[in-house]
Amino acid sequence: MNQKLGKASVKLEEEVYILNSASIAGKKEGEGPLGLLFDMVGEDDLFGCNTWEEAESSLQKNAVYLALGKAGVKAEEISYIVAGDLLGQSIATSFGIASYNIPLLGVYGACSTCGESLAVGSMLIAGGFADKVVCVTSSHFASAEKEFRFPLEYGNQRPLSASWTVTGSGAFVLGAKGVVTTAKEGPRARITGMTIGKIVDYGLKDSMNMGACMAPAAASTLEQHFIDYNSRPEDYDRIITGDLGSVGQKVLIDLLRDKGYDISAMHIDCGIEIFDADSQDTHSGGSGCGCSAVTLSAYILKQIEEGNWKKVLFVPTGALLSKTSFNEGKSVPGIAHALVLEQV
Amino acid sequence: MNQKLGKASVKLEEEVYILNSASIAGKKEGEGPLGLLFDMVGEDDLFGCNTWEEAESSLQKNAVYLALGKAGVKAEEISYIVAGDLLGQSIATSFGIASYNIPLLGVYGACSTCGESLAVGSMLIAGGFADKVVCVTSSHFASAEKEFRFPLEYGNQRPLSASWTVTGSGAFVLGAKGVVTTAKEGPRARITGMTIGKIVDYGLKDSMNMGACMAPAAASTLEQHFIDYNSRPEDYDRIITGDLGSVGQKVLIDLLRDKGYDISAMHIDCGIEIFDADSQDTHSGGSGCGCSAVTLSAYILKQIEEGNWKKVLFVPTGALLSKTSFNEGKSVPGIAHALVLEQV
Repeated sequence: MNQKLGKASVKLEEEVYILNSASIAGKKEGEGPLGLLFDMVGEDDLFGCNTWEEAESSLQKNAVYLALGKAGVKAEEISYIVAGDLLGQSIATSFGIASYNIPLLGVYGACSTCGESLAVGSMLIAGGFADKVVCVTSSHFASAEKEFRFPLEYGNQRPLSASWTVTGSGAFVLGAKGVVTTAKEGPRARITGMTIGKIVDYGLKDSMNMGACMAPAAASTLEQHFIDYNSRPEDYDRIITGDLGSVGQKVLIDLLRDKGYDISAMHIDCGIEIFDADSQDTHSGGSGCGCSAVTLSAYILKQIEEGNWKKVLFVPTGALLSKTSFNEGKSVPGIAHALVLEQV
Repeated sequence: MNQKLGKASVKLEEEVYILNSASIAGKKEGEGPLGLLFDMVGEDDLFGCNTWEEAESSLQKNAVYLALGKAGVKAEEISYIVAGDLLGQSIATSFGIASYNIPLLGVYGACSTCGESLAVGSMLIAGGFADKVVCVTSSHFASAEKEFRFPLEYGNQRPLSASWTVTGSGAFVLGAKGVVTTAKEGPRARITGMTIGKIVDYGLKDSMNMGACMAPAAASTLEQHFIDYNSRPEDYDRIITGDLGSVGQKVLIDLLRDKGYDISAMHIDCGIEIFDADSQDTHSGGSGCGCSAVTLSAYILKQIEEGNWKKVLFVPTGALLSKTSFNEGKSVPGIAHALVLEQV
């Protein structure tokens, strides 16, 4: 039986593997430090579509296609797809993955959705409800600006604390122990556990400083994880948040230091890794569901596969706002989910 | 071990119970045929709040509060809350349930979200990941009109095929076998299995006829359920869809008749039950996540408790559109998830 661990964690007794994965990214992401690692990079961010939303849908569709191919698994072998995105009513997902005809569990956790989808997907497998599951999430700079901020044509100035929504999608094929595929390469990593985050609201209202809004949620989830697992930061080769950026990173490290945990030596953030802040004018760093998803697929899993990192805590972070909540003067609460990824 | 059943279904070998539940509804719903059954009915639809969105958040908060009280369970005993709503970025949920400090898995399946939340929640329990889980969903007529259609002040005419978004929230406390509570009354029903739906798109584009848009998804999920379970419509005392309304009901019955299943004798629809179409001017019927959620809590579970129905197939239905997808001329795909509910 799978193990409920502490207050908000799960230790998977049944083995769950990331059989394979794929990442598709936009032009700007392709020009960044991780550019050569992505499976596919678009030449322009419409990806041959008519609208930004269609472009984002095509990212999800193609990321799933590539991931299935790399995993040696056919779409009809997949029991469930766990998917989501940032757009209102998750339309990137609805119009992206419909043609696969796979039963869908739609999830929403803002930019933490990649973590939530992997958490739900691995519980579906560990619980004996499925043998193979696909998890996919996406974001797109232009559809997100339209959804949350200003029309691109307006050319608004961005404060230095603002992040740049990543154009990209990452898809992951999860499988149970003993699943046989035609893939040439083995599983990329094993998911051994997770800590599910709660909503944390410090009352911050600045949607142009989402790193600071989300850092308290990341700190809360990490503290809960260390308590539930009776572990310390040193037990992980890397602790990797989703999209806190350079501003949020400082807040997170300070908040956890106050709780008695020093993560400064092993903390990295997908939003900081994905862009070169100096040359790419992305200010605080990358953000969006796609940020952590493509960085996990292209960079983190590669490090785990190569044995550079044996055990990683992957903590996508989300800011729970909408343009309506922003316009009504509400705060921007955060949420973060943590996954334990280990070398196979 | 829990049983994967057929292509898209699960048969829960571990026992999962709806320990108790609560429903809160708006004024109009309170004046309808189920009005006396709701736990609480608002006097006006702002529920003492400043905005429609805050009102919807307060519905979720209060429904959870009432359900916990009726179940004899404290918030801190709950491992996870599985929640969602119709608003962009699920803000009714984010601002509704934050104060409970319970780890959150946000879900989105449009008006099928009630079904998805119960499916995920019961798998969390049956998989051994949690002992007690809360599932909550909501919708609000005014916040939904603002999100999807026209400002209320515009006073637009509604075609007869349009449905009326239910103002309401239903919360459900799920528990594993052997969970001990201080509740006076026993569990309301048992969840014994489910069929997860896929996206079905017949290309319809009329957001004022969502019943017709969703009926093909309901037909697909029901057909898959009958195949996976090797069952027939006659095996259920009632087959209850979420919000097809009177137009969608006809489409569903016809589509399934073509597949060799006649559900006309035992089919009812929450959207048809909740309003008196003649006197309440609600046209095709009620809709929204709240429609199936409050009808399940107030009416369906009561019938199961009283032994009038021993086995029910509960099939919330969702229309996957946003105002952006509508304005860009996209179709309105549907999705539906089925849950098997049985008398304890």
